[in-house]
Amino acid sequence: MNTYGKKFTITTFGESHGKALGCILDGVPAGLAIDEVYIQSELDRRKPGKSPLETGRKEDDKVEILSGVFEGLSTGTPIMMVIFNTNQKSRDYDNIKDLFRPGHADFTYYHKYGIRDYKGGGRSSARETAARVAGGAIAKLMLKEMGIEIQSGICEIDGIVGDNIDFEYAKNSRMYALDKNKEKAQEEAILSAKSKHDSVGGVVLTTATGVPIGLGEPLYYKLDARLADAMMGINAAKAVEIGDGILSTHLKGSQNNDPITSTGFSSNHSGGVLGGISNGDTLIVKTHFKPTPSIFQEQQTITTTQEEVTCELKGRHDPCVAIRGSVVCEAMMALVLADMTLLNMGKKIEHLSAIYQK
Amino acid sequence: MNTYGKKFTITTFGESHGKALGCILDGVPAGLAIDEVYIQSELDRRKPGKSPLETGRKEDDKVEILSGVFEGLSTGTPIMMVIFNTNQKSRDYDNIKDLFRPGHADFTYYHKYGIRDYKGGGRSSARETAARVAGGAIAKLMLKEMGIEIQSGICEIDGIVGDNIDFEYAKNSRMYALDKNKEKAQEEAILSAKSKHDSVGGVVLTTATGVPIGLGEPLYYKLDARLADAMMGINAAKAVEIGDGILSTHLKGSQNNDPITSTGFSSNHSGGVLGGISNGDTLIVKTHFKPTPSIFQEQQTITTTQEEVTCELKGRHDPCVAIRGSVVCEAMMALVLADMTLLNMGKKIEHLSAIYQK
Amino acid sequence: MNTYGKKFTITTFGESHGKALGCILDGVPAGLAIDEVYIQSELDRRKPGKSPLETGRKEDDKVEILSGVFEGLSTGTPIMMVIFNTNQKSRDYDNIKDLFRPGHADFTYYHKYGIRDYKGGGRSSARETAARVAGGAIAKLMLKEMGIEIQSGICEIDGIVGDNIDFEYAKNSRMYALDKNKEKAQEEAILSAKSKHDSVGGVVLTTATGVPIGLGEPLYYKLDARLADAMMGINAAKAVEIGDGILSTHLKGSQNNDPITSTGFSSNHSGGVLGGISNGDTLIVKTHFKPTPSIFQEQQTITTTQEEVTCELKGRHDPCVAIRGSVVCEAMMALVLADMTLLNMGKKIEHLSAIYQK
Amino acid sequence: MNTYGKKFTITTFGESHGKALGCILDGVPAGLAIDEVYIQSELDRRKPGKSPLETGRKEDDKVEILSGVFEGLSTGTPIMMVIFNTNQKSRDYDNIKDLFRPGHADFTYYHKYGIRDYKGGGRSSARETAARVAGGAIAKLMLKEMGIEIQSGICEIDGIVGDNIDFEYAKNSRMYALDKNKEKAQEEAILSAKSKHDSVGGVVLTTATGVPIGLGEPLYYKLDARLADAMMGINAAKAVEIGDGILSTHLKGSQNNDPITSTGFSSNHSGGVLGGISNGDTLIVKTHFKPTPSIFQEQQTITTTQEEVTCELKGRHDPCVAIRGSVVCEAMMALVLADMTLLNMGKKIEHLSAIYQK
Repeated sequence: MNTYGKKFTITTFGESHGKALGCILDGVPAGLAIDEVYIQSELDRRKPGKSPLETGRKEDDKVEILSGVFEGLSTGTPIMMVIFNTNQKSRDYDNIKDLFRPGHADFTYYHKYGIRDYKGGGRSSARETAARVAGGAIAKLMLKEMGIEIQSGICEIDGIVGDNIDFEYAKNSRMYALDKNKEKAQEEAILSAKSKHDSVGGVVLTTATGVPIGLGEPLYYKLDARLADAMMGINAAKAVEIGDGILSTHLKGSQNNDPITSTGFSSNHSGGVLGGISNGDTLIVKTHFKPTPSIFQEQQTITTTQEEVTCELKGRHDPCVAIRGSVVCEAMMALVLADMTLLNMGKKIEHLSAIYQK
Repeated sequence: MNTYGKKFTITTFGESHGKALGCILDGVPAGLAIDEVYIQSELDRRKPGKSPLETGRKEDDKVEILSGVFEGLSTGTPIMMVIFNTNQKSRDYDNIKDLFRPGHADFTYYHKYGIRDYKGGGRSSARETAARVAGGAIAKLMLKEMGIEIQSGICEIDGIVGDNIDFEYAKNSRMYALDKNKEKAQEEAILSAKSKHDSVGGVVLTTATGVPIGLGEPLYYKLDARLADAMMGINAAKAVEIGDGILSTHLKGSQNNDPITSTGFSSNHSGGVLGGISNGDTLIVKTHFKPTPSIFQEQQTITTTQEEVTCELKGRHDPCVAIRGSVVCEAMMALVLADMTLLNMGKKIEHLSAIYQK
Repeated sequence: MNTYGKKFTITTFGESHGKALGCILDGVPAGLAIDEVYIQSELDRRKPGKSPLETGRKEDDKVEILSGVFEGLSTGTPIMMVIFNTNQKSRDYDNIKDLFRPGHADFTYYHKYGIRDYKGGGRSSARETAARVAGGAIAKLMLKEMGIEIQSGICEIDGIVGDNIDFEYAKNSRMYALDKNKEKAQEEAILSAKSKHDSVGGVVLTTATGVPIGLGEPLYYKLDARLADAMMGINAAKAVEIGDGILSTHLKGSQNNDPITSTGFSSNHSGGVLGGISNGDTLIVKTHFKPTPSIFQEQQTITTTQEEVTCELKGRHDPCVAIRGSVVCEAMMALVLADMTLLNMGKKIEHLSAIYQK
Repeated sequence: MNTYGKKFTITTFGESHGKALGCILDGVPAGLAIDEVYIQSELDRRKPGKSPLETGRKEDDKVEILSGVFEGLSTGTPIMMVIFNTNQKSRDYDNIKDLFRPGHADFTYYHKYGIRDYKGGGRSSARETAARVAGGAIAKLMLKEMGIEIQSGICEIDGIVGDNIDFEYAKNSRMYALDKNKEKAQEEAILSAKSKHDSVGGVVLTTATGVPIGLGEPLYYKLDARLADAMMGINAAKAVEIGDGILSTHLKGSQNNDPITSTGFSSNHSGGVLGGISNGDTLIVKTHFKPTPSIFQEQQTITTTQEEVTCELKGRHDPCVAIRGSVVCEAMMALVLADMTLLNMGKKIEHLSAIYQK
């Protein structure tokens, strides 16, 4: 249950304060140039401690490839990547050893498994997403060969909505803001909450361009369903929209249907998916992140022996997980699309015959 | 890709205007009393033509079990259920044979597969959900043995939001309305759109009570991620929220965290899931359905040979798919929970030893 | 666990004396001509009662396609095939209702599931293989498009070994004998055992020609491993050999290695597989079937309440299951190869780019 | 395709001459004591260079656990184990860079993937089985909690058959010989072939005692089929027998059926499996290994550019892979049984209700 995908798969391992974390990518086609500098640059985008908007915890997040690459090219065998943990302050967690942090997975892991790695949340920590970003980077390299490009950014923070979407701007924004006019207000909302030992939520917009028609496997591996699964599975995600999403619900059918012309669709309410299959238009997904559960205020909770206590967290935490979540959203979309791309081939019998009948 | 679940699985087959549709349920534990009257009653809740709020197409949707049940009990072998189609009017579709209906899967199926069963949408028709409801009914029978109950209803139509949630009321409402005070306005919105040959969207609230702590398999088979996948995979769904969902994004961490007391959580913003695992509280999911793409107005589209044409649909269609979608949401939640229930067992080594060391 | 394969999958259902049995084939590429006459002819080869060498039970085994085919072509959606049972004599099984037949699955099913469909073995009956043959027939149709042909026959009965392998001869032999010189002795062994109310074992040779280089997914979905799984999973199979199999064990490395020349391998000890991947040579598999456990002699057994009793079976049974097993071996090889064919595509990144970069 | 199992899964990575190899074990129940000394001792049994019967290549095969264990206990999260390669002599392979070794996977990998890691066979090397042994060791620890014990040994070398099976003796034999009376002759056969730069085949017997009734999931995840798959997937395996295997084929039904008494089966021709499900008797599997393809004689082959050449291998290779294969057979049986054990739970609805209805 720690493997994602069917043909292009990622299996991750590792805990927040363990020795290392990483992943095995399986199904990467042979002959792909594995650009290690690019992979590291993706990890650098996600790594913590780059600005006051993020946790103060610093991790190098240096990734090393241990298998599956020969003379710079993928060989079709499993690609294993590992990131050793270097900056753990496990003593920060001594005071929460026997209690459950509200809004965290402590309570459920303890009850499910009867045992809990309390250091930094163990496996349930968002630190695990570093492995997804490493895997997603290779997925992106593969997708680029097919002309597919993925972008993301923050469109909303604490209810402050960005309208003028500019992915180029977001790339250089320290909070990946999509609307430069709203960036300042959004930053202030984050810093204001931080100063009050509180946290805020945010919304990430992720898109893919160059997607061919035909990705997505109906009926139970639809493209939109898998994207919903991928995004909702990211730590702190609470809602996912495809295309106009919730707004669609308020439109009439005559307004919401995208008319078809000989040069394509004349609108994109659908977000690039019809019947669970990509329609060639830009793929649009919004992911809503709740405010970071780790806050530095007194909260009511219980201990593992059912005693009611108050807790006040120590440690270093992001005041808004959506920011770094943005990079993870891209990785998850890349992993889904890479999988769909490989699954899709050969649906048409003519195509199949062409490959095998030389 | 027409199989859902890992241990309790449903594999469906069938097209809207083919001979039959149905499913194979695999993984149903032996010894479960299979109440055929109950299964049929669930199909009756979903079947079309019960009120002017729905399509005029009438289908008996009589379900027959062909295997896996012996003397009223499940045997642990695959349970096959079939529903023969009886009321097809395939000639309604002759005029769309060579064109793509806007908002439908016609365009994507044609391009993906190079062939398309144009009669009633073929496999992409929501008619397939009858098979899910049949499977979901057996899942519900199993869950009932464990004390889990699933309910649903309509909380919003065309922007008219119901606040006073009453699942008992919804059971007897012909539109499964959760708020009796809003039902009239919501019905009128549907009938008004219908009279204009248009359609409206709606939102379904689905909950499960009695869910034990510990369902959901981190990190890539989380309960909330699977529910998002399940709901987003239903025809016309465009957004899924867990618990407070989008609203969470507007709260501070100190407001959104659910305090823990010795008798449980004192609020349920999370919707019953923490870290992808059920926390014992009520499971809450909202599914947003776009307005039915089948409308009876002139729309712009193209033919399979790329000619631009206008099309005006014939046939019989729901003015609001959310209503019958409500029953499908329950079925999908039941299928997810049944799967999670079976996957969860034996996580603890003591438990495992207890079973095998007699 | 009633689904076989990863991309070209078959899911079967049905019991020996239930209403029906059949399968859902998923992953069949769109555009394949579905020749129903051919499918039926494959079922006819397997169906019982064709000669005194087989059970006297007669079944029409008429197969009907309920979905997935439109105007004679596969659409890429699930193909459902059903065979209704017509010739059950369930009263033959009344006397074994409370006891376990030696050599049968009665004992294990009863203890695993706590319930048992005792009529004709229920799900554990070899009757289920009719569904595999139906699915295998479509797999064969697909493989034929790629130039792959599968053949089989009986090479050994009761220790009488056939050496002069002639697949053409086997096609017209009523016991699918591969060596016409041994056929008479082999038939006599069967009939002699039958006259003594006993049964004999046999060995089936199955081959595939035209197999391209590269089928098989290392390391845990190897071609030879999957063939071993497929054949060992057939009722009554007890051993599987690839290529020279057991004989290889007695050779030196210098004798067993197949030298490679510019026109191919100069011998085929390997049976067409190297490192779990097809090498372009003929695929060779031998499957060893134990003697039919259903014999009409007095045998020692116990009842469900642990009483020791003797049992004498009634009913109609094959004196040698290997004969009809031969047709099932072909079907299983076809299903494995169809799956491998679809899984294999796009391993090379150039190939992938070619498909998606138009 | 580098993942084995459904619920207790192993995913391996790594090449013979790469930086490292290892595995991720997923599905290990929480609370299992992870005895690292035991795991290392299993790797030591498999590691090369322990006697003149094996390759002279020496590897420490030190295993390190990087995740999934907390304070000595499994936590239910993925257990990652890594073994760094330390004794590669890659220059041994420079002369085979452009040619295909007969009997090896070089030819098929090159054609399948269009690229080949020629150093020591890369991923196709039996060195990968070290990762299986590491995973199998943890599977064995879990099985031991359930009273299941796995043993193995060599029963045949180069046609010299051991009859007096003694697993205790095998544990201390440097060639894991099961029959002490045949050990000398078997050793001589190996050393004789080695002195002639040749190699021999061998047969491994693997058994499991204490297996509960009911393991194995019919119809397409049967215990015997999975064991066949597991064993045939080991490098150089060419045949697999369950119970009497091939010998069964020569018996009459009246001889081969195991009579059932109130205290169990009075013989075990079946090898502990009926209908694909364990019957509580000892599980018996024989695996036949071909002679090592790496021999130091001149052989005929071709280059990657289709030129016919002769090759003479350098390097260090086992004269008989069956010996160390014996340890791998145990690991594979352990992995299959661990998976079956977890899959089996909760088949009976009463059991399921008992767990969830507290």
